[in-house]
Amino acid sequence: MARPTPLSGFPEWLPDGRVVEQHVLEALRRTFELHGFAGIETRAVEPLDQLLRKGETSKEVYVLRRLQADEGDATPDDRGEKQLGLHFDLTVPFARYVLENAGRLAFPFKRYQIQKVWRGERPQEGRFREFVQADIDVVGAGELPYHYEVELPLVMAEALGSLRAIGVPEVRILVNNRKVAEGFYRGLGLGDVEGVLRQVDKLDKIGPEAVAELLVAEQGATPEQAKACLELAAISGSDASVVEQVRALAASYDAVTDLLETGLAELRALVEAAARRAPGVVVADLKIARGLDYYTGSVYETVLVGHEQLGSICSGGRYDTLASDGKNTYPGVGLSIGVSRLVSRLLSAGLVTATRGVPTAVLVAVTDEETREASDAVAAALRARGVPADVAPTAAKFGKQIKYADRRGIPFVWFPGEPDQVKDIRSGDQVDADAATWAPPADDLWPRVVPAGE
Amino acid sequence: MARPTPLSGFPEWLPDGRVVEQHVLEALRRTFELHGFAGIETRAVEPLDQLLRKGETSKEVYVLRRLQADEGDATPDDRGEKQLGLHFDLTVPFARYVLENAGRLAFPFKRYQIQKVWRGERPQEGRFREFVQADIDVVGAGELPYHYEVELPLVMAEALGSLRAIGVPEVRILVNNRKVAEGFYRGLGLGDVEGVLRQVDKLDKIGPEAVAELLVAEQGATPEQAKACLELAAISGSDASVVEQVRALAASYDAVTDLLETGLAELRALVEAAARRAPGVVVADLKIARGLDYYTGSVYETVLVGHEQLGSICSGGRYDTLASDGKNTYPGVGLSIGVSRLVSRLLSAGLVTATRGVPTAVLVAVTDEETREASDAVAAALRARGVPADVAPTAAKFGKQIKYADRRGIPFVWFPGEPDQVKDIRSGDQVDADAATWAPPADDLWPRVVPAGE
Repeated sequence: MARPTPLSGFPEWLPDGRVVEQHVLEALRRTFELHGFAGIETRAVEPLDQLLRKGETSKEVYVLRRLQADEGDATPDDRGEKQLGLHFDLTVPFARYVLENAGRLAFPFKRYQIQKVWRGERPQEGRFREFVQADIDVVGAGELPYHYEVELPLVMAEALGSLRAIGVPEVRILVNNRKVAEGFYRGLGLGDVEGVLRQVDKLDKIGPEAVAELLVAEQGATPEQAKACLELAAISGSDASVVEQVRALAASYDAVTDLLETGLAELRALVEAAARRAPGVVVADLKIARGLDYYTGSVYETVLVGHEQLGSICSGGRYDTLASDGKNTYPGVGLSIGVSRLVSRLLSAGLVTATRGVPTAVLVAVTDEETREASDAVAAALRARGVPADVAPTAAKFGKQIKYADRRGIPFVWFPGEPDQVKDIRSGDQVDADAATWAPPADDLWPRVVPAGE
Repeated sequence: MARPTPLSGFPEWLPDGRVVEQHVLEALRRTFELHGFAGIETRAVEPLDQLLRKGETSKEVYVLRRLQADEGDATPDDRGEKQLGLHFDLTVPFARYVLENAGRLAFPFKRYQIQKVWRGERPQEGRFREFVQADIDVVGAGELPYHYEVELPLVMAEALGSLRAIGVPEVRILVNNRKVAEGFYRGLGLGDVEGVLRQVDKLDKIGPEAVAELLVAEQGATPEQAKACLELAAISGSDASVVEQVRALAASYDAVTDLLETGLAELRALVEAAARRAPGVVVADLKIARGLDYYTGSVYETVLVGHEQLGSICSGGRYDTLASDGKNTYPGVGLSIGVSRLVSRLLSAGLVTATRGVPTAVLVAVTDEETREASDAVAAALRARGVPADVAPTAAKFGKQIKYADRRGIPFVWFPGEPDQVKDIRSGDQVDADAATWAPPADDLWPRVVPAGE
């Protein structure tokens, strides 16, 4: 087998990169659990017809086929099987899980879900074909109070904020409300709200003039209507004054509607609560459209300050119908962090680093193979007290055993003897030690993730 | 969307089942890390030609195809892409990872890997199409000392033993050595060692007489040779006396070989060390064959005592060539736990239970919607001190809010007031409390996993 090369779009980390990823996942999970979200995992596959319910994602799906089915010996149960694909997000599987288990779940149901997803897109910078998402959603049976639209982005702000300590840049959550956009467009007399949103969503890519042209050419807007849409999209701010700006703009076009007022009241509540609870994090940005057509209220995008060109690393919104089984509908609100994109940037930009790539805090040296069991016993005593320990692979010269530790970033080497001694190989300090009582400094016990340069 | 039904072979757990699975995974991971294994994850896909290098697994592979490729608009880079399949174990991907990153890893390289794998097999009791494996391996560059063959099953015994506290039955690790079998068969004059092993591997399924017939019919053994093979397979024991039994048997057939002696010395070292370090856990069982042809030394299978019909939940062995890039070979030894099979049995047999399915220890009641922020502030104060807290979804009557907690197993409900009060809804005890200082008993802080019936 020749040396294999990486598959484009399928990121993998070396052990020290994985330490960083694990740290990120655990920090997120801890915040989610402190807020009462239950963890679930869903299978990686869904029936293809469910994955394709939204046409726009159809090109991204990886379809599965059993190799056996190729060989002409399919059994009847093969032929009766549904065609399966890998999930491309965690929302479609969650919706299915809620319906499937509705009778056994308590609503409102708050869940987090941290799993890989797959998209057959052409790989490019920051876009992967396999990546980890970390989602939180709360879903109600029949109804879901508005206050969750305020709380969920703040949970994400707290989760991402818990990563500041390791060098993750500040985040900014950009919020909008679908009712504001829809109410405004309808007030202007534009009926195809989806179409207008789709064009406005292109603002960052093609600029306002091109969007205005598209609004006229594709959505049948008058130049004045197009201008109004762009004026709305230009409004942003981190306090309730944005609400006044939108209302004034709408009034100037005689476009104030009940739906707009409802949306503005919700947007105001979100911005005001966020300003109190996480000052500076949430910014109302009226150009945030979110392409997906199932959002019905608040929508969210999140950028890393100073890394805006990376795009949104955490997005989501409110949907009135996550799922429906004919009898009940399940409205919800949720956000999803693109963990792989975040970790990839942290590693490639050298923002964070792991203090070592192995868990081991102590390497126990082996004097000769006949006394390996004495070294094993030292390691066992250390582990029994929660100190990760490894034993040297061979009874090589001590210099070589120290090098084994050094190459892996293991800070301490233990020499069995009478008495035992332990050496901090960074400082060279060597002291008598007893495996029943000695412990490394807390900072050395487990690998830590720290801002690069520390 | 009608209520969906589960997909056979793709297990999913309700939140309280997931608490159990998470606990198992964390306990395993902690043991692995205490022993110095670094965690890695590999992508879910491998090139199909790599997955099919071993013909016997070809029927199990799920092949991927981008839906787009079906639609006739494949781009040149699509056409140039390798055909991909989902990995069916963690050994093939690990071998590829080692080759791909050999220059950036330090050998011997100890890694654990906990991920889902997929096999397109017909689902049946205890056999899944998607399941979680937890693997440990140590791999050397060019060489790997024998002592790792003793250590790795003991790490697994410790990992599985750490689950005794939650009600997991005792485990028994059955060990054999491929060199013993091969040396014995060759000493008998049987040249097709793989073939003989394949027949002996069927002992539990079809019994000794049928195996003897197959050895004669398929492997060209004489009845006496077949009898000798079955006599070898019948030997088992937990101390070094098994070694003497095998040697005596081999001598009686004049079948003692150097390879047999090497294997017996290794088997003796393993059994003796295990008897000292984990008494009663490891049993030499000469019928353990392990179908896979890459094992070259020790082989392992693990059963849950009292649940032997579940089959092996943790298997592995020593391989001299995990991978080779032409220049170097990478020998290794490893074991793999079938976590889903284990968790599925724990849940279906009612052996373990989670104290609750949500992380929440405290539900903060809401007196009316106008004072929701006061309840939010209580929850924030509790979370800041590491107490998982949720806030009631609506300002319903307190009885309904208590029911919300009760349905989820949340032990405490907090009533903001002057002063605040907290109620243990199991005992009904209600006391004054301050969110800046109050904490639940340690046993109530997070969900715990306990033996069922406790």
